[in-house]
Amino acid sequence: MTHPAIKLIEDRYSANRFDNTFNLDTPEIEDLVRLATSAPSAYNLQNWRFIAVRSKMEKSRLTDLAYGQRKVSDAAVTFIVVGQLPNHTALPQRLHPFVDSGHMPQAMAREWQDAVQTGYSDPVMARDEAIRSATLAATTMMIAAAAKGLVSGPMVGFDAKAVSDSYHLANDELPVMLLAIGRAAQGNWPQKPRRPLTEVLKVQ
Amino acid sequence: MTHPAIKLIEDRYSANRFDNTFNLDTPEIEDLVRLATSAPSAYNLQNWRFIAVRSKMEKSRLTDLAYGQRKVSDAAVTFIVVGQLPNHTALPQRLHPFVDSGHMPQAMAREWQDAVQTGYSDPVMARDEAIRSATLAATTMMIAAAAKGLVSGPMVGFDAKAVSDSYHLANDELPVMLLAIGRAAQGNWPQKPRRPLTEVLKVQ
Repeated sequence: MTHPAIKLIEDRYSANRFDNTFNLDTPEIEDLVRLATSAPSAYNLQNWRFIAVRSKMEKSRLTDLAYGQRKVSDAAVTFIVVGQLPNHTALPQRLHPFVDSGHMPQAMAREWQDAVQTGYSDPVMARDEAIRSATLAATTMMIAAAAKGLVSGPMVGFDAKAVSDSYHLANDELPVMLLAIGRAAQGNWPQKPRRPLTEVLKVQ
Repeated sequence: MTHPAIKLIEDRYSANRFDNTFNLDTPEIEDLVRLATSAPSAYNLQNWRFIAVRSKMEKSRLTDLAYGQRKVSDAAVTFIVVGQLPNHTALPQRLHPFVDSGHMPQAMAREWQDAVQTGYSDPVMARDEAIRSATLAATTMMIAAAAKGLVSGPMVGFDAKAVSDSYHLANDELPVMLLAIGRAAQGNWPQKPRRPLTEVLKVQ
């Protein structure tokens, strides 16, 4: 039997039209972030952060920074999904519960810390990881939202510099995506057609 | 009632140990890629490609390029998830089925093409999009694999230059992730503990 998650993945579409009368309360927003952060990240860095823009005033402000896209305001919440450059000094704290529970040897936690320090000394690699980790979490949030009967609309069309300034992102943070989540209104497009598998897959 | 996909997301873990007697046939690999590519991408660029490394010889070769990580060989298949720099000249072909079906006006397809040409003229933005799109697809594949009773192990620990050379990636392509998929063997860690929500979420 096909698992119901397969159908969710097949049926997901990027929503553009949201029911602007539908709201999400704080526990519902927290649950979306809890699920999003169950995504994997390199070395379990969890180098992500979420600003849930929900109030009418804040949504209006963010809409202006997203070239007036209405879904930013019409959705129940629009997340600014923030990626963080890997920081080896933060890693011990993120691994210690797994060391304390007896899963990970302390020596391995130190090795991972060294690997993070070395591996991301190249700023291109560091930025790549911020984008990758934040996207792992954002994608997981989209599927979690679908499982809750909600729709999502990811956006890269926004003024990244203005969002960083306006929402006081730190120097080691970047806004990777905006993600509108709420209840669908009428008139959304279905999922757009995909390239044939022959174009995108090689088995060897 | 909680949708079963929520439990999949909660229970997913990054597998390190795979049953090396378990194989996936080509239709199963194709189905994983079909589901992965239902992920969204900016402007529906679908700027991704998948090399499914399945044969014993190819897995051995890729293991060497991934610092000897055994899961590359032990998994039924290890995907090289490739991101492509956005190419505005490729976009009309990717949008035309949606124009032909009457969903998208032709003028909008042209606007999107212009937006891709302009928006990704900055090479940093172009690389970001390659990482983001490939990660959207890879994350979706992880959840699809879980829905099929499989486990997955994402990896960034590999020699990107060597993988690009050895698998003949084009100049506008980069290997964003390796993703091992197969049947779990004994001895995997559970999902690692996550940062508290208070550290990663701000509602406003």
